[in-house]
Amino acid sequence: MKLYNFDPAPNARRVRIFLAEKGIEVETVGVDLRDGGQFTDDFQAINPRCTVPMLELDDGTRIDESGAICRYFEAIQPSPSLMGSTPTEMAVIEAWHRRIELEGLAPGSDALRNGAKSFKDRAVSGSRPFPQIPELAERGVKRLHLFFDMLNSRLGESPYVAGPEFSIADILAYVVIDFAAWVKAVPSDEHTNLKAWYAKVAERPSSKA
Amino acid sequence: MKLYNFDPAPNARRVRIFLAEKGIEVETVGVDLRDGGQFTDDFQAINPRCTVPMLELDDGTRIDESGAICRYFEAIQPSPSLMGSTPTEMAVIEAWHRRIELEGLAPGSDALRNGAKSFKDRAVSGSRPFPQIPELAERGVKRLHLFFDMLNSRLGESPYVAGPEFSIADILAYVVIDFAAWVKAVPSDEHTNLKAWYAKVAERPSSKA
Repeated sequence: MKLYNFDPAPNARRVRIFLAEKGIEVETVGVDLRDGGQFTDDFQAINPRCTVPMLELDDGTRIDESGAICRYFEAIQPSPSLMGSTPTEMAVIEAWHRRIELEGLAPGSDALRNGAKSFKDRAVSGSRPFPQIPELAERGVKRLHLFFDMLNSRLGESPYVAGPEFSIADILAYVVIDFAAWVKAVPSDEHTNLKAWYAKVAERPSSKA
Repeated sequence: MKLYNFDPAPNARRVRIFLAEKGIEVETVGVDLRDGGQFTDDFQAINPRCTVPMLELDDGTRIDESGAICRYFEAIQPSPSLMGSTPTEMAVIEAWHRRIELEGLAPGSDALRNGAKSFKDRAVSGSRPFPQIPELAERGVKRLHLFFDMLNSRLGESPYVAGPEFSIADILAYVVIDFAAWVKAVPSDEHTNLKAWYAKVAERPSSKA
């Protein structure tokens, strides 16, 4: 089994922290996204979507979405549970995880890809050129601040994002907060619940993965 | 248990087709999105995100994401399986399901919300006003055509989107194709694999749900 990885990428971090929480070690293969490693012929032959992380199983099956890679490991090693044990837990955690993708990760990607010079003509993931839309970068940053507000409010009523236990929703939210700083969106001093939760998650050894 | 529903909405259709495939009947409560039903005080008290579908369990738990609602029903009634039975199947289906969200559903939403007059100042889901970005509507339509190409190519190598069996990935792809027509993006005559698969899925009784 091999995990194609680029250390700084938020989606790759989501998977690495998930694996660290499970105590699973997987061989990694580096793909340097800052150097166009995802666009080489060799890598496109492996993943035509030009994205990492990607997991390649020993039977050759390739899984090219972070959430799906986590699902695989949750299924082969359910403990410690990060995606819920009962039907209700599974659904509530998945809903929060997805909400963080929609309200945090997607706006962050919009902001970075439509605003950073290094993403000129690469405003959409993949090998097809797409021009940047500066208004979308601005919208992304504005939505990241709403995301912080929402998460701060949620963490005032729940110790972790999806309920009483740490889950994949916390992993993604933590990763998104660091990612948002790339476009200079950071929580404010009023986000006290969010900051306390962030400090608690940062103390977990997995956060360094 | 209650499912808050609006018949034409693609996410609500995804859940209804999923339930029809499982043979599960759930009481539905209509929320008319064309009439602002999602913004009433009553509905905002139930779902501050102002979205449907939303599932309310008998214990009061609310699940506000379509994929998570499907996960709940898959967990309480695994047969017929629509999200995979083995770890590899589960991961592969989830990866395709997510890819269709990213490459089909999201561009379709971008196109509709940033282009249709009825979504003026509602370019982002929820109660906060966001002005439309016409360039993003154009990008959405362009990406929908790339989505058709990708899906047509995939269906030339696999009978169903995620492999040999019908799954939630087919349900979402089918719903997205109908949704794309709202912004006048339709498959071309060259998309023969896609059209053959679409006809096959349309014959399933669940497609009318």
